[in-house]
Amino acid sequence: MPSPLVVQKFGGSSVAGADRIKRVARRIARERAAGHDLVVVVSAMGDTTDELLGLAAGITEDPDPRELDVLLATGEHQSATLVSMALHAIGVSAISLSGPQAGITTDGTYGRARIAGIEPRRVRTELEGGKVVIVAGFQGQSATSAIDQEITTLGRGGSDTTAVALAAALQADRCQIFTDVRGIFTADPRLVPMARQLPIVGYEEMLELAHQGAQVMQVRAVELGWINDIVIEVLSSFEDAPGTLIKEDPLVEQRNKVRGLAHDRNVAKVTVVAVPDRPGIARAIFDPLAAAGVNIDLIVQNVGHGGETDLSFTVPQVELGKAKKTLDPVVRELGARELTTDASVAKVSIVGAGLHNAPGYAARMFGTLADAGVNIEMISTSEVRITCMIAEDELETALRALHEAFELERPEPIEVAAAG
Amino acid sequence: MPSPLVVQKFGGSSVAGADRIKRVARRIARERAAGHDLVVVVSAMGDTTDELLGLAAGITEDPDPRELDVLLATGEHQSATLVSMALHAIGVSAISLSGPQAGITTDGTYGRARIAGIEPRRVRTELEGGKVVIVAGFQGQSATSAIDQEITTLGRGGSDTTAVALAAALQADRCQIFTDVRGIFTADPRLVPMARQLPIVGYEEMLELAHQGAQVMQVRAVELGWINDIVIEVLSSFEDAPGTLIKEDPLVEQRNKVRGLAHDRNVAKVTVVAVPDRPGIARAIFDPLAAAGVNIDLIVQNVGHGGETDLSFTVPQVELGKAKKTLDPVVRELGARELTTDASVAKVSIVGAGLHNAPGYAARMFGTLADAGVNIEMISTSEVRITCMIAEDELETALRALHEAFELERPEPIEVAAAG
Repeated sequence: MPSPLVVQKFGGSSVAGADRIKRVARRIARERAAGHDLVVVVSAMGDTTDELLGLAAGITEDPDPRELDVLLATGEHQSATLVSMALHAIGVSAISLSGPQAGITTDGTYGRARIAGIEPRRVRTELEGGKVVIVAGFQGQSATSAIDQEITTLGRGGSDTTAVALAAALQADRCQIFTDVRGIFTADPRLVPMARQLPIVGYEEMLELAHQGAQVMQVRAVELGWINDIVIEVLSSFEDAPGTLIKEDPLVEQRNKVRGLAHDRNVAKVTVVAVPDRPGIARAIFDPLAAAGVNIDLIVQNVGHGGETDLSFTVPQVELGKAKKTLDPVVRELGARELTTDASVAKVSIVGAGLHNAPGYAARMFGTLADAGVNIEMISTSEVRITCMIAEDELETALRALHEAFELERPEPIEVAAAG
Repeated sequence: MPSPLVVQKFGGSSVAGADRIKRVARRIARERAAGHDLVVVVSAMGDTTDELLGLAAGITEDPDPRELDVLLATGEHQSATLVSMALHAIGVSAISLSGPQAGITTDGTYGRARIAGIEPRRVRTELEGGKVVIVAGFQGQSATSAIDQEITTLGRGGSDTTAVALAAALQADRCQIFTDVRGIFTADPRLVPMARQLPIVGYEEMLELAHQGAQVMQVRAVELGWINDIVIEVLSSFEDAPGTLIKEDPLVEQRNKVRGLAHDRNVAKVTVVAVPDRPGIARAIFDPLAAAGVNIDLIVQNVGHGGETDLSFTVPQVELGKAKKTLDPVVRELGARELTTDASVAKVSIVGAGLHNAPGYAARMFGTLADAGVNIEMISTSEVRITCMIAEDELETALRALHEAFELERPEPIEVAAAG
């Protein structure tokens, strides 16, 4: 019988500096001593990616995407070799592989490539040779010939996706994401002291938690885990404590439907005021924004009156400038009264599988915010989420009130069984 | 008729930082505007290679050679992408290629690989597409499949070899090595103010100048240029001034035979004192040193007397500790009296094609040193070189005396024709 195969991923903060790399190596050695085969995916050390972006910014405002990807990928090459060296130094046989060497091919889109396939022949060979295989995360190649291959990167958090995709391709027994938090919480513990770690979270719930700003894992990694039914464990690389399992949860219907709160401060509201209410207006506004690469989130169009309407939507704060520049001429052309923007807003969400079909949750959320004196500016819902946009300076008040109202600090009795 | 093809190499100091990279880009743009096709080889930025070695040293004293090569190669990947970005930014079409992408294969020896072959298909395709091709120097792959390829580095100065090898494979019209000096001088201008830049130097002369510590170019690059008859131009990346041509020189016999002085401070003397004078002694001493990877240079064995002899040799200063550790038990076994070492020595050489067959040069060298009060500790000669080992603190005196004695400051009248 082959040894159980574990895929582990260590993020940038887990490998920031020689001491932390040595600690990671000791943890890997312990897992190895327990008889497991191991594939380890690493991110670039600490702030390396930002430093490389800074180097490029020193050369040009608008770096060529292909060259930028080659540049950024060096960060993961470096950390992978250093972890491998640290394992050699404590007597553990290991080898580092680049994304291309690990057989990871992508769709070839620079900066935010998607994994198109994995042919982990080399990974298997090295595992069979008794080696711990360290894979540079965040990257893959666009073709399989050595000469024509182009390095492409998977976007921020892409190493999570590398780990989950490898776990799927290798049919690993476990996929562990080591990070600088202990797991997934009912809310951000820095804002809500009562926040409680969740032993288990469903894929869909995790997707909404990730989308809404609880940036523990890359969204695509969760999607990939869901599609391939990979149980993902999120846990701390700094302490020995149980983490949170992300997995299909058959007991979802029996529980408290609200699993956690998510929030996002990196958001700004844009309103086109008093735009003529006629067909084609929305397209006239959102087509140029899409062409400019602005990501739109919530959209709200009020019921028109007097032949005019207000149209509001949210964008990531960093894209607000681009959105304004794109829309200023459009607003004049459409004959709207003005364009207003507000960057001092935030989104707060309740997240839980089955929320959508369970009456009363939306009402309780709105009532709780009203009781806490928090004004709701926009509302949006999905299958597993209800989101309100509020003033940023009321975020903490809102989170604490919601956490208490939904009794998130109370462990669900059913979960002991669910996690077992 | 195709455009003339020029291969240019820019060393680490030429690309140290954004401003210098932009300057390199402008120089490349000028060459491109003059109608040349261009392949540009770059080293890692400034002290990057040393910084990466430092990272590895923080993890382990004895890093795995394979992992170290992958780590070091990232330095050239980074600088290549940055130069390419800088060209894009000023409107010059460019693409960076890794050593593997440029089709450079090696013999697979980590840390000091030799180029085994170049299949520059991708380079040609990109040139035909009108692009300036930036190649990461110092590296190649050990196999041609993307999954099995291993990055191997060519050793210190390996980017020179990359440039000359590419010039040979592409049948380039010129190969230019941009560096932080203006060319090859009759002696180190920092030590000998009268030193004069040579407009032309033969391959064999250049080899001895490089070997003896005039570290402008990697020795292997000169050898490769010689074998493939590539005219190499060494010139400054910081000023617009003619450099030195390294080429076969048909006028060598008509000139002053001494072309320049070389010196090397990175040397230490080891003496096995009073070792029994019997067959096999030399092997007993040098076999273990070879096994330990200690590089031996000059060897002198005095004529024995009383059944005993002294055996002296030189090693690079950084290898002195290893040499002592290796020899201590050997010296006891052989029954030698003791092992003495001296790190405060230096080598000084006169270099010139045809020196060996021209009488009188050795005598003039020894006489000059004697007149200057410099004691000669060891002597060694080759076809194009006579080397004396002297006390390190007399190096400057020796160099200046020899420069004057051989009239190296006087331009040879014949050279104007030779360089034309």
